[in-house]
Amino acid sequence: MNHYSYNGKVLHVNLTTRAITEETPSQHVYRRYLGGGALSLYYLLKEMKPDTDPLGPENLLVFAASVLTGTPAMGFSRYTVAAKSPLTGGFGESEAGGWWGPELKFAGYDAVVIKGRAEKPVYLWINDGKAELRDATHLWGQYSKETQTMIRDELGDNKVRIALIGPGGEKLVKYACILNEIKHANGRSGLGAVMGSKNLKAIAVRGKKRMGLHDESRVKDISQGFINNFKNSPDALALGELGTAGFVTAANAMGILPTRNFREGTFEKAEDISGELMRDTIQVGRGACYKCPVRCKRKIKVDEAPYSVDPDYGGPEYETIGAFGSLCGVGNLKAVARANQLCQAYTIDTISTGASIAFAMECFEKGIISSEETGGLELRFGNADAMLKMIEMIGNRDGLGDILADSMKEASERIGNGSHKYAMHVKGQSLPLHEPRGKVGVALAYAVSPTGADHQEAPHDSLFEYDAGVEFARPLGIIEPVPALELSHKKVRMFVYLQQLYSLFNSIGICNFTAHPWGPVSINGLVDYVNAITGWDTSLWELMKVGERHSCMARIFNTREGITYEEDILPGRLFEPLNRGPFEGNKIDMEDFKHALKMYYEMMGWDEHGIPNDSKLQELELEWIKDKLD
Amino acid sequence: MNHYSYNGKVLHVNLTTRAITEETPSQHVYRRYLGGGALSLYYLLKEMKPDTDPLGPENLLVFAASVLTGTPAMGFSRYTVAAKSPLTGGFGESEAGGWWGPELKFAGYDAVVIKGRAEKPVYLWINDGKAELRDATHLWGQYSKETQTMIRDELGDNKVRIALIGPGGEKLVKYACILNEIKHANGRSGLGAVMGSKNLKAIAVRGKKRMGLHDESRVKDISQGFINNFKNSPDALALGELGTAGFVTAANAMGILPTRNFREGTFEKAEDISGELMRDTIQVGRGACYKCPVRCKRKIKVDEAPYSVDPDYGGPEYETIGAFGSLCGVGNLKAVARANQLCQAYTIDTISTGASIAFAMECFEKGIISSEETGGLELRFGNADAMLKMIEMIGNRDGLGDILADSMKEASERIGNGSHKYAMHVKGQSLPLHEPRGKVGVALAYAVSPTGADHQEAPHDSLFEYDAGVEFARPLGIIEPVPALELSHKKVRMFVYLQQLYSLFNSIGICNFTAHPWGPVSINGLVDYVNAITGWDTSLWELMKVGERHSCMARIFNTREGITYEEDILPGRLFEPLNRGPFEGNKIDMEDFKHALKMYYEMMGWDEHGIPNDSKLQELELEWIKDKLD
Repeated sequence: MNHYSYNGKVLHVNLTTRAITEETPSQHVYRRYLGGGALSLYYLLKEMKPDTDPLGPENLLVFAASVLTGTPAMGFSRYTVAAKSPLTGGFGESEAGGWWGPELKFAGYDAVVIKGRAEKPVYLWINDGKAELRDATHLWGQYSKETQTMIRDELGDNKVRIALIGPGGEKLVKYACILNEIKHANGRSGLGAVMGSKNLKAIAVRGKKRMGLHDESRVKDISQGFINNFKNSPDALALGELGTAGFVTAANAMGILPTRNFREGTFEKAEDISGELMRDTIQVGRGACYKCPVRCKRKIKVDEAPYSVDPDYGGPEYETIGAFGSLCGVGNLKAVARANQLCQAYTIDTISTGASIAFAMECFEKGIISSEETGGLELRFGNADAMLKMIEMIGNRDGLGDILADSMKEASERIGNGSHKYAMHVKGQSLPLHEPRGKVGVALAYAVSPTGADHQEAPHDSLFEYDAGVEFARPLGIIEPVPALELSHKKVRMFVYLQQLYSLFNSIGICNFTAHPWGPVSINGLVDYVNAITGWDTSLWELMKVGERHSCMARIFNTREGITYEEDILPGRLFEPLNRGPFEGNKIDMEDFKHALKMYYEMMGWDEHGIPNDSKLQELELEWIKDKLD
Repeated sequence: MNHYSYNGKVLHVNLTTRAITEETPSQHVYRRYLGGGALSLYYLLKEMKPDTDPLGPENLLVFAASVLTGTPAMGFSRYTVAAKSPLTGGFGESEAGGWWGPELKFAGYDAVVIKGRAEKPVYLWINDGKAELRDATHLWGQYSKETQTMIRDELGDNKVRIALIGPGGEKLVKYACILNEIKHANGRSGLGAVMGSKNLKAIAVRGKKRMGLHDESRVKDISQGFINNFKNSPDALALGELGTAGFVTAANAMGILPTRNFREGTFEKAEDISGELMRDTIQVGRGACYKCPVRCKRKIKVDEAPYSVDPDYGGPEYETIGAFGSLCGVGNLKAVARANQLCQAYTIDTISTGASIAFAMECFEKGIISSEETGGLELRFGNADAMLKMIEMIGNRDGLGDILADSMKEASERIGNGSHKYAMHVKGQSLPLHEPRGKVGVALAYAVSPTGADHQEAPHDSLFEYDAGVEFARPLGIIEPVPALELSHKKVRMFVYLQQLYSLFNSIGICNFTAHPWGPVSINGLVDYVNAITGWDTSLWELMKVGERHSCMARIFNTREGITYEEDILPGRLFEPLNRGPFEGNKIDMEDFKHALKMYYEMMGWDEHGIPNDSKLQELELEWIKDKLD
């Protein structure tokens, strides 16, 4: 048996020189990094110097699918975009599902590594093993939908898959996102701004390449097995029924639905922004990613102004509903759906946009931001119309929107007057919609995530809830749940193991909603599948080490950029009592939190300053990185 | 699906009080420790105080099968005996195949934990869920074969499986072993002496209990799959053809066959002690362990004196041939086979016995030991008859044999006169038959093995050879061999991963000759099998952590007994040039070795003194051990 059968290519594009080259990475590279986040970090650390301006031509922008993206089984639609983040100044990474990643593979590439800056706006067109840069001057300034339509028309093919930016990315909103199919977002870390800074409007891909499969009949059997399991996966079926929006009602009942800029843990109008309401009112259909039977995406439609919504933009996810609903105090689903569409049109991250507006609302109510500064907007919690207006101001960098378009850290520094107390961010990236005072494991996850506060650092269920969570952790040997409010070594251990698992997921390109326990792909099934595709004779041990490698490289990346353990902190509000709901009065204990950080570093094999020691780098075959640190 | 379906019992026997009780361990205990070495350490650390006299009644003696021992698939015959070792004063552990372990399971128990000391000699009779202590006064002093026959006659059942000691164990030879079927040895660590010190002559087991299998049809399929793979496993088939004795010729050709007390790397008479010669002359059949089609055991017969051999005692393994052949300079297969039989009759470890005699031979030739001290024996290299006489003197603790019956460290201290330079041991346990100067990874393995120098700390192929070895390591992500003479971080990493794998094997009860690449059981197949048996939904990650837990607990055990990192050393000779053969002139580099130790501690998550830190204990769910350290 040939153990070395995975073959792939990486496309390198220099926008400054317009040079386009192909690389054929070694099996070592594929096995050590797989794709996605880990493969991106490999290129970022190898090819980019420290202290690079994230919005300068020297920043590297990596689009990375994985060895599994686009293979026949359900769940492997994902790809990563990564760069030095303009939002945090550290490692930036964000995953998206949809259709672009698989199509990149069919076009012949596992990844695209982009350097430099185009003189004028361009888009990259990758068509079945050929790549070219095309003029995008006429596309500049267009919203996402128009951009997609114009490129498809130009290329004469409606099946071209396009990763693109709208005006938010062009105007360097620090948390601009990248969309494919104008609804699947590489949402966080501000990677759309990096695209904008490079004058790169879009990457269009199309291909007919048939991927090599080591053992076709085994791939077929395993894929069918996943489908069979899916039919008996209640969580995946429920997810299909309500989408992630289904979590609104649950989170509110549990008291962990961040409300009015994290002042409260429940929202009195949660029913008015719920997934159930969406299904029963504005939903007109469901959508899916490549090969996925879960179909958790929503198609929604609102005809009447001012909240009209075009179904092509997709429906709001849980995070988006939380950000524009409870966090801004807006109990109006149509307004939230309209906010979602505006963000998609401008390509700005819904979480950061909503969180920035909620922050500004609190500052306005406290008199820190005046009506003059808002251009007359009564920017109060619950004012949907002011919120929608602010989205456009951010997308256009108008007035106060120009300030809020920077990281929340920068914004609060510019606003001053004690506003930092209300700036709910870690390392500049605003908190997603999970209240740590009701599930304290997330406090640790937010603090140590290399990209700043992130809800995809580890599975929430395991970290936060009492029981369901252990389903994720059981195959790793954690057979008892750890109570939601316990920030003990048991919680830290669970986080360490699950962070590695999720870092693996983010490198291997599997959607966590298709992985057990949410979905039908068990982690042992995943190993089988990798072997059937690649013939590597790999194991979960090797794959989990890819996850650890990812975390370790990200840490090194941030260390290199001068981000120290002193930034593994949380906004002060989390150490103050939560208002309302089941966890009213609860706060993160500072001593527990500091001790958890210490244990986390130790369990990771890092020193007391959170830096991986030499032997850890060597164990992970990352000794080459040491040269990059000098 | 019930994830918690493994049920088992542990028998506790107090020889002092004659109390016999049953314990039903929790699923936590079974998943964390599985059986064998790890389960033994769990009891040793939990129930035994530090500074216990290894030959006193307070020492704990654990016989532990595993959750898989005796299940239907090939390869799961193994069980562990463990105690505080009288040889090293630290952790003592040794595995044996054969038939005793499976029969213990059929009798209803996963393990037997023995405390105290019987007033008079006894044996333990475990019969289908019932256990009793029986008088063994009449058996005391009997050789192993006679003991086995007498007990079987007494119990009226020739299928009773008996773990027993002969006179060597009774007389507290510090490296006395325990045999089942008078040929399968728990050879190392001197556990037979612990049995002797407790006046426990034997444990006889018999049972008809049918073990519960979580998914019977899956167990059947997997078992059949292993058998099918076996038919295409060239290494396993070759092992069946020549037994481990087949390695003599190979080791000699490679220059790593320890000769004349590790002075030389090849033996000019290797052909005269080879596996091929054995097959073609004295071999009369093959033997096997429970359910194993490999059949690597030998049946040999020599009729004529003085080297007559009874086939019931089995044939010499590679280690035995090396110890009595090349290491003692004896180029006579029949003499070696006779030496093997004598050791089995007395139940003394063949490796330590041969090594002790080789050590004495060098001392004799150098004039450190006189003819007077040997009782007139010309104890020179190559003198087979003197060697055979010395075995009996050791077994009976006669004259010089009484000195050599202690650990090699103690013996050299008593002999004095610079003899320590020729005492080839680590922590008191003599080196097995693998020359580290030709495969330097073994130097690290010998130094850090918790039981003293041991050849089962990690698979040799991977550590020592150029190519074949990586077969073991590939599924763990090491896809390139590390050259035999390179003691770099790559070798350390390979050792760390493979030590965990072998520690898992020693806890789960699989024979490494049935595991891939030697045999047909891949490590992913092993995970499937554990799940089919137990219904646990476990993964290789969890199982490898059992291996790490084992290493970590053993380290804590030794730390508790005052064994520090300063004893992670090698005999001085290994830092001097090797004579003869392909590796002539080669030596271990002291700086490389010290650096490798440092890297090893770091990669294990231990401090600079080789002690696991608190977070590592917590990660491995061993926080309870901290109480045992105070």
